[in-house]
Amino acid sequence: MTATRSREIHLQRRPVGLPSEGDFALVEVTLPEPAAGEVLVRNHYLSVDPYMRGRMVDRPSYVPPFQIGQVLEGGCVGQVIASRGNADFREGDYVSSRSGWRECYVSDGGDLTKVEPQGVPLQAYLGTMGMPGLTAYVGLLDIGKPREGETVFVSGAAGAVGMVVCQIAKIKGCRVLGSAGSATKVQWLRDVAGVDEALNYKEAASLIEEVGRLCPDGIDVYFENVGGAHLEAALEHMNPFGRLALCGMISQYNQAAPGPSNLTHAVRKRLTLQGFIVSDHPDRQPQFHADMTAWIQAGKLKWEETIVDGLENTPKAFIGLFAGDNMGKMLVRLTDDS
Amino acid sequence: MTATRSREIHLQRRPVGLPSEGDFALVEVTLPEPAAGEVLVRNHYLSVDPYMRGRMVDRPSYVPPFQIGQVLEGGCVGQVIASRGNADFREGDYVSSRSGWRECYVSDGGDLTKVEPQGVPLQAYLGTMGMPGLTAYVGLLDIGKPREGETVFVSGAAGAVGMVVCQIAKIKGCRVLGSAGSATKVQWLRDVAGVDEALNYKEAASLIEEVGRLCPDGIDVYFENVGGAHLEAALEHMNPFGRLALCGMISQYNQAAPGPSNLTHAVRKRLTLQGFIVSDHPDRQPQFHADMTAWIQAGKLKWEETIVDGLENTPKAFIGLFAGDNMGKMLVRLTDDS
Repeated sequence: MTATRSREIHLQRRPVGLPSEGDFALVEVTLPEPAAGEVLVRNHYLSVDPYMRGRMVDRPSYVPPFQIGQVLEGGCVGQVIASRGNADFREGDYVSSRSGWRECYVSDGGDLTKVEPQGVPLQAYLGTMGMPGLTAYVGLLDIGKPREGETVFVSGAAGAVGMVVCQIAKIKGCRVLGSAGSATKVQWLRDVAGVDEALNYKEAASLIEEVGRLCPDGIDVYFENVGGAHLEAALEHMNPFGRLALCGMISQYNQAAPGPSNLTHAVRKRLTLQGFIVSDHPDRQPQFHADMTAWIQAGKLKWEETIVDGLENTPKAFIGLFAGDNMGKMLVRLTDDS
Repeated sequence: MTATRSREIHLQRRPVGLPSEGDFALVEVTLPEPAAGEVLVRNHYLSVDPYMRGRMVDRPSYVPPFQIGQVLEGGCVGQVIASRGNADFREGDYVSSRSGWRECYVSDGGDLTKVEPQGVPLQAYLGTMGMPGLTAYVGLLDIGKPREGETVFVSGAAGAVGMVVCQIAKIKGCRVLGSAGSATKVQWLRDVAGVDEALNYKEAASLIEEVGRLCPDGIDVYFENVGGAHLEAALEHMNPFGRLALCGMISQYNQAAPGPSNLTHAVRKRLTLQGFIVSDHPDRQPQFHADMTAWIQAGKLKWEETIVDGLENTPKAFIGLFAGDNMGKMLVRLTDDS
C-alpha cells in the first residue's frame, strides 16, 4: 500500500472575536501507512459546530483547547478504504469519529463508531441521528423536563439542535414557540416542523414583547441556544418553577457581552437554569436511537441540512454558523459518492 | 375595653430606584375593638427584609404587590395584650406574624404563630430562628447540596441569611469563603462564624481575582444574596457541576443592571442556577427547628443583630439594608419590655 496524501484544516492562530479565514490553514500531509490492525478512513462529510469556537480559546474546559498548528477535531463520517487486519472495521464499513477536519486519516479503531445508516443518509449521523440530535433529546427531556400541555420556547430553532428540540416537544404534547433568523426558517418551522408559533427575531421590534404575545400562558421550558436578548425575553415570561436548559449561547461566543438584566426573575419565579454537555450523557444513546428511529419512520421528525462543498471551504462554513447561514445542520461534503 | 390607638407605616408611593423616606408614611389609626374570638397584639420587634423591595413594584409575583395607602406587611413578633376568648391565644402569649410594620393589630389568630422562645431572645424568631434562618437552611442544604470537603462561597455573608449559611456550611464540613462589605463584618466572619476565608468586597481591586485567590480549588456551591459582580466572580470560579443557590440579588433591586457577562460558563461547566423562595418549603420547618436548636445549644451557631429603635425609623432601617448598614438581622424595636 502506498502512502496517502490528504488535506487537513489546522488552527493557524486563536481567533479574536468573530473567527476569520486567516485563523485557519489548509495543509497537505502525507499519512503514515496504516500499521497492522489499523485502518485508513476517507471522510465523506465533516461537521462544523458552534461549540468548536469555545475550544479555540486557550483555557481549561470540559475538553482541552485546540492547539495551534494541529488539525481541528470535529465530527466526521466516512468509509474505511483500507484495513490492515482490524478485527472490528473492514473495508467498506461506514464510520463516524471526532477525528476532524480532514479528508483521510489512519486509526487503530479505538476512536471509531460503526454507522449502519438505515433509512437515513449517512450524514444524518452528524446531525439529527448524531451529536446534535442527542443534544436536543437529552437537553429537552432530561434537563427541560417538559410536561404535556406546557409551553416550550426554543431559540436557534432552525439550527441542527433546535429543529429537533421543536419536534420532540411537539411529540410530547407541548405548545412550541421557535425563534429563528429568517423568513424561510420561520416558514419551515411552521409548515414542516409543525410548531405552534415561530418568530423572526431579526424583525421583532421588541423580542420581549413578541415572545410575550406569542406565549400568552407564559413559558415553562426554555431551550437556550442563543443567549443575550433571547435569554432576557425568556426570563421575562417564564412561569414559576420553569426550567431553562442551557445548551449554548451562540450570540456570546465571539464577544464578551453583558448578561440578562432581569436575572432576578430566577429568584422570584424559582427558576432552574441548568447547563449541560451532551458528552456527559452517553447512557442515553440507546433510547435516543430507538426513539428517533421510530419517530422518523412515523414521519414525525424531519430535518434540513446546509451543505458546503470542499474541505477548503470548511472555515467559511464554520464562520457562517455565527451569521446563521445554516438551516439545520451545517455540513461540509468531501466526496460525491455518499 | 376601650379603642386602641396605634401607629403604622404605609406605602405612600412606589419607590423608583433606591427607596427614600418620602415613599413611606407614618399613620395614626384607631384599631377596631377585638370581636369575640379575636386578640389584640402589641409588637415588640418588626423585621425589615430586602425581599420587601420587590413587593413595592406593581407586578404579579409569588406574593401580591403592596398597595399604596396600605400598611406594609412584614414579619413581626409581639405579645397578646388582650384576648376575647380566643381558644389558641391567651393574654401574655408571644406570637409572630406577617402583619406588618405597626405597633398593634387585631387578629382572629389565623395569621399568628405562637412563639415559645427557649434559650434565645424573642427577636431571634425574626432572624436566625425565623424566616432568614430557614432561608439559609433550605437554600444551602436543599438547593446548594454541599458535600463534605467542598468549597462554599457566600455573598452577603454578614447578613441575616448569609451568616447562618456560613455556619451551617462549616457544620457540614465545607470550606467557606464569605464576602461582606466592611472590615468589622469580615472580622466577625473569621473570628466568630469561623469561616476559612472572608473578604471585604469594597476593598477588592478585582473581585474575580480575589475570589480566585481565596478559592484555589474552585467553588462547588455559591449562595447568592447579592448579584452583579459577585455572581460574575462566582461563575468564573465555579467547578464543573457546581450549584448556585439564588436566594436574592440585593445589588439589583433598585436598578436594572446588566447581568453577568460570563454566563456561558453555566453551559461549559454544567452549572445549575436555582432560585428559591423560603415560603415554598414549610415542610422543612420542624427539622430546621430541631437542627438549629441543637447547633445553638452546642455553641456552633452564633449571630448578630442590628437594632433600630422606634416605629418611625422603620423606613430608615429598611433603606439602610441596601447600604449594608446591618450586621446580621436588621430589626426595629418598638418596646423596651422584651
